[in-house]
Amino acid sequence: MAIRIGIYGYGNLGRGVELAIAQNKDTTAVGVFTRRDPKTVKTLTGIPVYAADDALKMTDEIDVMILCGGSSTDLPEQTPYLAKYFNVVDSFDTHAKIPQHVKNVEAAAKSAGKTALVSVGWDPGMFSLNRLYGEGVLSDGKTYTFWGKGVSQGHSDAIRRIEGVADAKQYTIPVQSALDKVRAGENPELTTREKHTRECFVVAKEGADKAKIEETIKTMPNYFADYDTTVHFISQEELNEKHGGLPHGGLVIRSGSTGLNGEHKHVIEYRLKLDSNAEFTASVLVAYARAAARMNAAGQVGCKTVFDVPPAYLAEKSREELLAELL
Amino acid sequence: MAIRIGIYGYGNLGRGVELAIAQNKDTTAVGVFTRRDPKTVKTLTGIPVYAADDALKMTDEIDVMILCGGSSTDLPEQTPYLAKYFNVVDSFDTHAKIPQHVKNVEAAAKSAGKTALVSVGWDPGMFSLNRLYGEGVLSDGKTYTFWGKGVSQGHSDAIRRIEGVADAKQYTIPVQSALDKVRAGENPELTTREKHTRECFVVAKEGADKAKIEETIKTMPNYFADYDTTVHFISQEELNEKHGGLPHGGLVIRSGSTGLNGEHKHVIEYRLKLDSNAEFTASVLVAYARAAARMNAAGQVGCKTVFDVPPAYLAEKSREELLAELL
Repeated sequence: MAIRIGIYGYGNLGRGVELAIAQNKDTTAVGVFTRRDPKTVKTLTGIPVYAADDALKMTDEIDVMILCGGSSTDLPEQTPYLAKYFNVVDSFDTHAKIPQHVKNVEAAAKSAGKTALVSVGWDPGMFSLNRLYGEGVLSDGKTYTFWGKGVSQGHSDAIRRIEGVADAKQYTIPVQSALDKVRAGENPELTTREKHTRECFVVAKEGADKAKIEETIKTMPNYFADYDTTVHFISQEELNEKHGGLPHGGLVIRSGSTGLNGEHKHVIEYRLKLDSNAEFTASVLVAYARAAARMNAAGQVGCKTVFDVPPAYLAEKSREELLAELL
Repeated sequence: MAIRIGIYGYGNLGRGVELAIAQNKDTTAVGVFTRRDPKTVKTLTGIPVYAADDALKMTDEIDVMILCGGSSTDLPEQTPYLAKYFNVVDSFDTHAKIPQHVKNVEAAAKSAGKTALVSVGWDPGMFSLNRLYGEGVLSDGKTYTFWGKGVSQGHSDAIRRIEGVADAKQYTIPVQSALDKVRAGENPELTTREKHTRECFVVAKEGADKAKIEETIKTMPNYFADYDTTVHFISQEELNEKHGGLPHGGLVIRSGSTGLNGEHKHVIEYRLKLDSNAEFTASVLVAYARAAARMNAAGQVGCKTVFDVPPAYLAEKSREELLAELL
């Protein structure tokens, strides 16, 4: 029987989850739950739309609820709340606050006998897994994470808030020479500036002071001041045409050595090249929804992360098929 | 307390395991078990050597036995036998026979309450994991495995058995143009010949017929006939100097699409570049020995593979450290 999934929140990520559920033969979408007026929301594949408040009436019809809200205000409240009623999966991605989030969700899920999988996606998520596997199988070494080339929505938003800016897109780009050193097994120490550059495409409002905008971007603390940043002013048309997508990706590299005197070098590289950040994240969420349903059936309740999930739980295939075809 | 590991078999892999145990702070080597006369075996780090037959007297001193024999005749017998007495880890790598091996080991391990992790290493092993994760998180797509550039010991051995050959090394090399197409997300159909080439460095015996050796190599069924093969005759000195190591590696690439009409492409690439095939495999085996001890303590008995192991079990770090540092 197909795994019945609810989609809680319907932005870019929620739409991606809807499409990913349709792609997987063993999952089915029960519907979207929204805080907007359900009558104003039209889904991509025609699945029903319900008011968020009605979710609790449907606990019997939903095996796993995928939470598609944001990490700053939505998920810290929604995940512990909904984990009392559903098996849940979220993509909470504020790295520094993950331990606290896990603690909050653990109490709710455990007492309700539910399985909650949090911080699922690609980082945190697939990248985290590769950092862990890398350290596990190559104990003497260093791990590097590079992001991009890809659009950072947080940085794009930060530019758009500057006076005189009509629109903007920001790309995070790994520094090729740093990447080359890491791939060569040199285990360099790299500063923030040495790892990534930032490239900004900005649409200025009529009559805005471009020099001032550029200066404001380049000196913005946390976001840009620690990076070599390039700013290009372009028209809204060019921005829409050439920078309309939300591609992303990056690399996790583990570089280490073995031998009596560390004489043998090994490099493990995991790379993602994604046309759509949200749709790939959504696709990962649906695979982990499958895992959440299985873990719950196996009595593994409480708050879990990708680190706790036996890989076989992600596969549509049976154990026999996995052993014969993929091992 | 450190995990106490026995090493059963002491060839290249066993020596690698000895070194990997020394690299990991939470593992300790109890000793090597050999079918040779123990007095004739000297270990790299000075750990004790016992007769293989004495292993069963030491069940109380060993948490996990790592089996370092070969897949053709050693492991099919040794793993089911030793799984009755120890938690075991092996690197059984005859892909077609894995389902049967699992079945044989399952019966022994389960009735004894032991945990057996089989087919651990990089292929099967880390590559298998990436094939599974790739399929799981990107359901519409194709998976490609490329091996090399690296030394294939089986192919090198096959050349050495040819009349007139004194010594040989064979490299398996991915075809760059095929790799480029896969990385570009083109999802090509590739024949055996289109994926890999084989390069052979051969030392001919004095007076041997080189043309005949080359012909014999290039037409050898299964090993070379289906590949574009290059043969270089060189001196023993050059072979020793330039081709003395056992490097290997390769790539697993999952390429797929998402979206309403599959309009967004995604490429996941996992790449290994290894100076020493045996030492890297050994390093993976020791990480999974850690997992075997933990799974057994958690009551997860029977025959398992990398697909069944929650990633957290591979890490020396605590759950709290993993959440704070790696997720």
